[in-house]
Amino acid sequence: MKLIASLAVVGTAFAMASPALAQFAKPEDAVKYRQSALFVMAQHFGRIGAMASGRAPYDAKAAIVNAELVAMISKLPWAGFGPGTDKVTPTRAKPEIWTESAKFKEGHEKLVTEAEKLLTAAKTNNLDNLKVAFGAMANTCKGCHDSFRKE
Amino acid sequence: MKLIASLAVVGTAFAMASPALAQFAKPEDAVKYRQSALFVMAQHFGRIGAMASGRAPYDAKAAIVNAELVAMISKLPWAGFGPGTDKVTPTRAKPEIWTESAKFKEGHEKLVTEAEKLLTAAKTNNLDNLKVAFGAMANTCKGCHDSFRKE
Repeated sequence: MKLIASLAVVGTAFAMASPALAQFAKPEDAVKYRQSALFVMAQHFGRIGAMASGRAPYDAKAAIVNAELVAMISKLPWAGFGPGTDKVTPTRAKPEIWTESAKFKEGHEKLVTEAEKLLTAAKTNNLDNLKVAFGAMANTCKGCHDSFRKE
Repeated sequence: MKLIASLAVVGTAFAMASPALAQFAKPEDAVKYRQSALFVMAQHFGRIGAMASGRAPYDAKAAIVNAELVAMISKLPWAGFGPGTDKVTPTRAKPEIWTESAKFKEGHEKLVTEAEKLLTAAKTNNLDNLKVAFGAMANTCKGCHDSFRKE
């Protein structure tokens, strides 16, 4: 609980500091940043997925560490979708990210919430809880990919 | 202090779970992972650098959030230098990473320590402390780049 409380503190500080965090030297850096953060997050999320699906043995400590990283990194990529970054090519980002920005924002805010729930689930040291939270977050990923990411 | 104590907990859990974290589907994923983590870390480190050098106004909260991310992410890239990843091209990784692995390990362990010191400095809310810790970590980055990264 102490750890979760601290994460909440970090989350709040992050939200307050987000204008300062949204600075990139050039749009290409913003694109590389969002792609990099999403890739690192996906790797750690995938390790939880391997446990959730039985492809890897359940390791409660590793699940927590991976969920901790997913929760932290889930907050990052969205700063990389700022003005001007829609002109950088090639990427798999659909124009709808910028034309339906309210829906996109709703999607990534949901992801951050699901990532927090995944961490909470991991901390119960219960594989069934982890499976449920993993599935919910995976659906959130997929929902946004279907709407906002090219094949 | 509570936050730093919690980070220590995460760090310990991370160290214990590192074999579980070192799994990649293929060497190319490991390379992309290490490059991605280093890029994200460099972006957040650079934002502290902008404050330390006066290119950006000092924002104590933003400094802490960025240092928090740097401290967390500084632990990650090294899992991506595992066996087989030296054969992936093109990268800027020099063969010395694998032929002088003890020196390389010493370097990245020093980086993690410097990143923790940077976070501690950021939390003092004192720009001079931040400058000193930033400089020390920047030197550590440079030391490894000089030895282990191609121009």
